[in-house]
Amino acid sequence: MIHDARRAATLAIGNELIEGRHVDTNSGEIAARLAELGIEVAETVVVGDERARVERLMRELCAEFPIVIATGGLGPTLDDLTREAAADAAGVPLELHGPSLDHLRTIWAQRERPMPATNERQAHFPVGAQIMANPVGTAPGFRVWVGGGVLAALPGPPREMRAMLEGELLPWIRATCGQGPAIAVRSLYLCGLPESQFAEDVGPWMARGENPRVDVTAHMGVLSVKVVARQTSRSAAEAAVEARALELAQRFAPFLYSREHPALERALFEALRARGWRMAFAESCTGGALAERITRVPGSSSVFLEGWVTYSNGAKIRRLGVPAALLEAHGAVSRETAAAMAEGARAESGADLAVSVTGIAGPDGGSLEKPVGLVCFGVATAQGTQTLERRYLRHGRDAVRAFAVHTGLELAWRAVAGPPAPPDSSARRELR
Amino acid sequence: MIHDARRAATLAIGNELIEGRHVDTNSGEIAARLAELGIEVAETVVVGDERARVERLMRELCAEFPIVIATGGLGPTLDDLTREAAADAAGVPLELHGPSLDHLRTIWAQRERPMPATNERQAHFPVGAQIMANPVGTAPGFRVWVGGGVLAALPGPPREMRAMLEGELLPWIRATCGQGPAIAVRSLYLCGLPESQFAEDVGPWMARGENPRVDVTAHMGVLSVKVVARQTSRSAAEAAVEARALELAQRFAPFLYSREHPALERALFEALRARGWRMAFAESCTGGALAERITRVPGSSSVFLEGWVTYSNGAKIRRLGVPAALLEAHGAVSRETAAAMAEGARAESGADLAVSVTGIAGPDGGSLEKPVGLVCFGVATAQGTQTLERRYLRHGRDAVRAFAVHTGLELAWRAVAGPPAPPDSSARRELR
Repeated sequence: MIHDARRAATLAIGNELIEGRHVDTNSGEIAARLAELGIEVAETVVVGDERARVERLMRELCAEFPIVIATGGLGPTLDDLTREAAADAAGVPLELHGPSLDHLRTIWAQRERPMPATNERQAHFPVGAQIMANPVGTAPGFRVWVGGGVLAALPGPPREMRAMLEGELLPWIRATCGQGPAIAVRSLYLCGLPESQFAEDVGPWMARGENPRVDVTAHMGVLSVKVVARQTSRSAAEAAVEARALELAQRFAPFLYSREHPALERALFEALRARGWRMAFAESCTGGALAERITRVPGSSSVFLEGWVTYSNGAKIRRLGVPAALLEAHGAVSRETAAAMAEGARAESGADLAVSVTGIAGPDGGSLEKPVGLVCFGVATAQGTQTLERRYLRHGRDAVRAFAVHTGLELAWRAVAGPPAPPDSSARRELR
Repeated sequence: MIHDARRAATLAIGNELIEGRHVDTNSGEIAARLAELGIEVAETVVVGDERARVERLMRELCAEFPIVIATGGLGPTLDDLTREAAADAAGVPLELHGPSLDHLRTIWAQRERPMPATNERQAHFPVGAQIMANPVGTAPGFRVWVGGGVLAALPGPPREMRAMLEGELLPWIRATCGQGPAIAVRSLYLCGLPESQFAEDVGPWMARGENPRVDVTAHMGVLSVKVVARQTSRSAAEAAVEARALELAQRFAPFLYSREHPALERALFEALRARGWRMAFAESCTGGALAERITRVPGSSSVFLEGWVTYSNGAKIRRLGVPAALLEAHGAVSRETAAAMAEGARAESGADLAVSVTGIAGPDGGSLEKPVGLVCFGVATAQGTQTLERRYLRHGRDAVRAFAVHTGLELAWRAVAGPPAPPDSSARRELR
């Protein structure tokens, strides 16, 4: 039984992580799920496939934290050393676990191929470890005492990690850990507002020690705001956090697109569905990324009709009816072309709303008058067509495209559901 | 002067990182750049905005490593505590740096708005610190001695981190650090081969202590293989690594699509350009993601004509000429529809190659005969049309789409340039 396990650490293991060929997303996912149980991840360590260092970190972290969750290094290859390092840290040898070997053999039999000999390594665990089943992959996980803390080892592939976390580890933690202070959390997602403006407006609510405390992160035009309250009872924490979240929602109403999910395409989807509208995208420089975003949402076929990636002038003319003379007169990247693209897409598809984007993502194709980073947008509805010009200067190709996708989604969302953008704040965002 | 600084650590600071709302990509980028100087990042720590913990970690890491690179926590808000923690760790107070304050005021003047008072925090640094300029943002960075190691603090936004790393920190490290053993690295990127098959074939080359050593990571159908050689001279390291990389390239030729870049769309782009072909995509379940991928490549307008996101049956009929009777007879997700989509896209666009994808990404829309995860592909060239059916079972919507995008790119690449896929290995990948 673990008492008062309100703090935890994670340990991500793998050369590909420490060398930057891969990014550790597991630790963050684990932290978010633990937070819902009132357990705070205070430290995350990433380390390569170095047996001695992994072993030392397991010991050090287990000495400070009652729960340490390791991910990775459970694969079949020789550089997968988590089992060995955990055994070293726990001061026990490895032993073969018969049921796990049977499980491995069954999986390989389903694949109709012989199991490579190296895979037998995956059925060895520190003596005394509790095995955790892997419902979606070959590598079982395990829990083992290391000093005064419990080390849990999960597989590195996020899908397998997630299945084992949800199916095995979290239920065990829920059953084992005592109750701590009640923590309640609310999120708000804003667009069209600079981070420093938000911080200035909110002021002391963001200070450390505030309760509830407000925290903000900015990424590609989106502000993710989190409100956390700690109280002795759940109801008190919920009441405190909801009151503060409501104040924020009212104060920043023109920028608030969701209280549930950071993905702007979800807000767009909900708005379209609520209004009974269907839409289309006509894309040049974003290359299909706007359509890709809205079709991420399950059920998007009910609101999204179709999209065009008219990368060439010929495609703009043939698919969307953009007049060749207009392209000649104003250029492919112009408010005029953007308007014609949006209108063409709306007429062709029969959609209520069509949004277009055409720009110079770079690195080539820029001029003094039309530099790399210039992007034009068109928004066509039954009420007419609006255009917008943005200059994402001093950015690379990927960033220009990412900003353009965000702005395209924001414009679509505002056209369907959003309040009008305030005159100043969002127009200056490209200066940030 | 730092001697023998062949090992380093990174420290990523921010509540959004430790809580999983954001992923730390900075540490990996820094590790990859340091590796080119022969400096190995051995440990990466992620920590929240906790002044005491950050300070303790700075001290501990600087006691073990001659270089510790921190990212994040340099913003203007009250929870940005890197400056304070670094001053604590170095045992010195903060002081105002006049030129940095001028720099901040200039940036805000360009924005034509008053500088919020909180931003003055960004011009305070530990006494004795060397300031590092930020060419693309407001927050300057700094370097300061903490015990026997140098702590370098860079901003958290990746674009600003990168600019300061390249412009200030790496040049300083190059100038300051002595020479270590020569390290040479080669990468190979394979598709269509399971990781365990690769590991089995390569065997002891992957063992720890091997020199050169081979390392592999699998992600969404791509195997990233890295070969690292350490020798006393650069030429010896280069020769050793090149010989091993060549052996791998020959042994895995049918799967090798690049020795330079993991992005399969780049290999496709190069192959199209080499052959003088132009192509189009017709997408249903991937929603534009294939077009988005190829248009990530600078210059892709020379090989990519256009794309259709025909999400509805109506769009498949009207844009691509898929016969309504064929849709009726075989369903939207069928080899027949995939073939008609690819042929329609090729005929409409005049492309040499068109690739289509239609599938059931879920979570709804599956049946016993056509389950969620069923995806059909069409590949149309002057030589005719080929189709492929894949079943990505037991996956969520995002994963089904991601696998389908990878397979679409792989099919396009093989159609233009690649050797034929071996009969067994890739056909079974969906079982993994």
